[in-house]
Amino acid sequence: MLDTLKQQVLEANLALPAHHLVTFTWGNVSAIDRESNLVVIKPSGVEYDKMTVGDMVVVDLCSGNIVEGDKKPSSDTPTHLELYRQFPTIGGIVHTHSRHATIWAQAGQDIIAAGTTHADYFYGTIPCTRRMSENEIDGEYERETGKVIVETFLTRKISPNDIPAVLVNSHGPFAWGTNAENAVHNAVVLEEIAYMNLFTRQLQPDLQPMQQILLNKHYLRKHGKNAYYGQ
Amino acid sequence: MLDTLKQQVLEANLALPAHHLVTFTWGNVSAIDRESNLVVIKPSGVEYDKMTVGDMVVVDLCSGNIVEGDKKPSSDTPTHLELYRQFPTIGGIVHTHSRHATIWAQAGQDIIAAGTTHADYFYGTIPCTRRMSENEIDGEYERETGKVIVETFLTRKISPNDIPAVLVNSHGPFAWGTNAENAVHNAVVLEEIAYMNLFTRQLQPDLQPMQQILLNKHYLRKHGKNAYYGQ
Amino acid sequence: MLDTLKQQVLEANLALPAHHLVTFTWGNVSAIDRESNLVVIKPSGVEYDKMTVGDMVVVDLCSGNIVEGDKKPSSDTPTHLELYRQFPTIGGIVHTHSRHATIWAQAGQDIIAAGTTHADYFYGTIPCTRRMSENEIDGEYERETGKVIVETFLTRKISPNDIPAVLVNSHGPFAWGTNAENAVHNAVVLEEIAYMNLFTRQLQPDLQPMQQILLNKHYLRKHGKNAYYGQ
Amino acid sequence: MLDTLKQQVLEANLALPAHHLVTFTWGNVSAIDRESNLVVIKPSGVEYDKMTVGDMVVVDLCSGNIVEGDKKPSSDTPTHLELYRQFPTIGGIVHTHSRHATIWAQAGQDIIAAGTTHADYFYGTIPCTRRMSENEIDGEYERETGKVIVETFLTRKISPNDIPAVLVNSHGPFAWGTNAENAVHNAVVLEEIAYMNLFTRQLQPDLQPMQQILLNKHYLRKHGKNAYYGQ
Repeated sequence: MLDTLKQQVLEANLALPAHHLVTFTWGNVSAIDRESNLVVIKPSGVEYDKMTVGDMVVVDLCSGNIVEGDKKPSSDTPTHLELYRQFPTIGGIVHTHSRHATIWAQAGQDIIAAGTTHADYFYGTIPCTRRMSENEIDGEYERETGKVIVETFLTRKISPNDIPAVLVNSHGPFAWGTNAENAVHNAVVLEEIAYMNLFTRQLQPDLQPMQQILLNKHYLRKHGKNAYYGQ
Repeated sequence: MLDTLKQQVLEANLALPAHHLVTFTWGNVSAIDRESNLVVIKPSGVEYDKMTVGDMVVVDLCSGNIVEGDKKPSSDTPTHLELYRQFPTIGGIVHTHSRHATIWAQAGQDIIAAGTTHADYFYGTIPCTRRMSENEIDGEYERETGKVIVETFLTRKISPNDIPAVLVNSHGPFAWGTNAENAVHNAVVLEEIAYMNLFTRQLQPDLQPMQQILLNKHYLRKHGKNAYYGQ
Repeated sequence: MLDTLKQQVLEANLALPAHHLVTFTWGNVSAIDRESNLVVIKPSGVEYDKMTVGDMVVVDLCSGNIVEGDKKPSSDTPTHLELYRQFPTIGGIVHTHSRHATIWAQAGQDIIAAGTTHADYFYGTIPCTRRMSENEIDGEYERETGKVIVETFLTRKISPNDIPAVLVNSHGPFAWGTNAENAVHNAVVLEEIAYMNLFTRQLQPDLQPMQQILLNKHYLRKHGKNAYYGQ
Repeated sequence: MLDTLKQQVLEANLALPAHHLVTFTWGNVSAIDRESNLVVIKPSGVEYDKMTVGDMVVVDLCSGNIVEGDKKPSSDTPTHLELYRQFPTIGGIVHTHSRHATIWAQAGQDIIAAGTTHADYFYGTIPCTRRMSENEIDGEYERETGKVIVETFLTRKISPNDIPAVLVNSHGPFAWGTNAENAVHNAVVLEEIAYMNLFTRQLQPDLQPMQQILLNKHYLRKHGKNAYYGQ
């Protein structure tokens, strides 16, 4: 069942330690099959070097019930499902505690676009969510985490296609993309720009966003119908 | 004698360079057999890539005398023993000079809980000890180091089960756990959050602890009778 | 056609990930054959571990037309060509988003000579360009990027032989040299001094350039007719 | 001739990239045979991965003349010789541009003893030299570099046995020891504490030296006739 997707999700999970984005088991990648509304996700707390394609768990998008798999899915599964439900164009999601993106999340601050590395992938500021309320934390916490991400994009009028990542306040980053591999790609870029912005602001404490026109140029050079980067 | 424990202690010691927690021989791991009150610890000043299970030293918890082994035990052995005597629930201890935890120790500052990475493992602030007195340093220095750690936990009413690590002022970190491997695990997490807090405070100089309710949620998601993380 | 040069350009491109200067495909190296006025450059968006000598693209210096090769050349090709046209003594060019050089570019600040590591390779301040205008960005952007680099060297009276690197504002570094390998060498040095200056200024916020006479000594020890470094 | 010493010097030079202390050829190690007053040193500008024992150069302590070897010795040789002449107890010297020690040298600042990692190896502040004068730079520059190091130790009444390293202003570190391997060991420790002090001062801008009595305890635990560290 969904063998190709499981293999992709396994490989995307294994890419996390390869890109130095995770310590121990602190990260998870999922992908969705939009036709069947089934989501494949990493099991909870399993070490990367022992993980096999058979460990991947299949859950139902609507109910969150396990459809296939012997293991419990990642405890962050309800967050992934909420994002798939509300962001219908995305195909893969990754969550990590990568060092520098997490630093911005712990500081509760957005990452503004300060250079073309950012502009090549993210069409503007990467938002940090508000702190969660007592009710949200005491309730269905992981699902509420997803809801607060969605709220952030709605209230700030940000498209999840333009900005495929978010910082969850006091927690860490989620990134997404067209599929599992693309989501990991965006998580790597996020970590890279999180590092660079941290120290750009050390040099320039009053750091301002880059020129809008340069942001447009670089984003649209790689995305949209007039893109001309790559083969 | 204690062959399984020796093997565990050897492997835990070898995990220190693998996790980039030590330079040269600057680190040591021990574990205790609570039935016999015997402690297995790394020998002093032996290089990791030449260390064998036969180099492990067995010492008596009460007297500190060598019970088995050809080599001198780590010079920090009396610190380990003091912690095993006063913290009866712990099974393994690790000491390193890992860069970022040591930076906080050198600054003489606590590491507050600023995010869920911290909350997943440490149930609140990781304390830094007071400076040691002239008498303590000139006396049984290594044992006094253990005593000042214990004093810190007693006077600040911290449970060593809730906070399995400490920063020794002007020195570096000790971490502990249910066994040698778990102690090393906590030492890795400590280094990770030491790094992240350093630069979170750069972004947010007036950094405050995270919400208590979020701390509770993450700590109890992984610990205690209602834990639901992992398989 | 230009087989030796293609091999050199391939190897120089592969040196970028080996020196940790690039993430994914974010970098490109070219070299010029001054006799034929042909430039060999990396293809656009091809992964380093799959790149072969046959992927290298040959373009004409004056027209920018592809003379040989199945793939599209790097999207930064017009920048390279402009530099080869205006800086007639250089033989190779490299562009990266290496972390610390990019940090200075994002801050829009020059890198002053603060020590002999800098002085051994760069005969003074490494300039950061001005921000590009709306017309430049909306026009032939990549070529205009080259023009703004050239303008920076002309108006500040800097010789590209003395200072074989530049920071493009809000973007990242370009470095060059006598050939592709030498250009990569200079890109590595640039990243090293970008790191060191960032934290030197943390220790010494009012950092001033080193003594001119010490700069002379080190630069001329390695360059020019009285050089005495190396075999 | 001096085959054992040459082998030791080769291995010590190869240890520099292994410990991430050098980029390209930016570093050199030497050792002295005190009986014959001959010094073995790395050749100038030779890449580490191509270096053989036959490349080592033997020079005379007093005259600096080459006694054996086909290659030119390191351009820093006169600095090494001056230190061997004035510091008669040292047996090996290393020079690098390791990142964090160089950062302190570029800032022109001493590294104070801020923790036991420092105290285990250096018995107090590691000094930074004054800036060199125009005459010194224009004269026998490399020998004058050695002289300014010696002057620093004399005028500040520091013993090179107690503090086996120095920061040369606007340049980088030299470290020494009983032999080539020990000198590299001290260079590794220097880099480690240079890193930790940089960020300790970020946390604690008014950083003061550690307690003298704790410094004594740790230094003497490892050095001198009452040392009890190691086997």
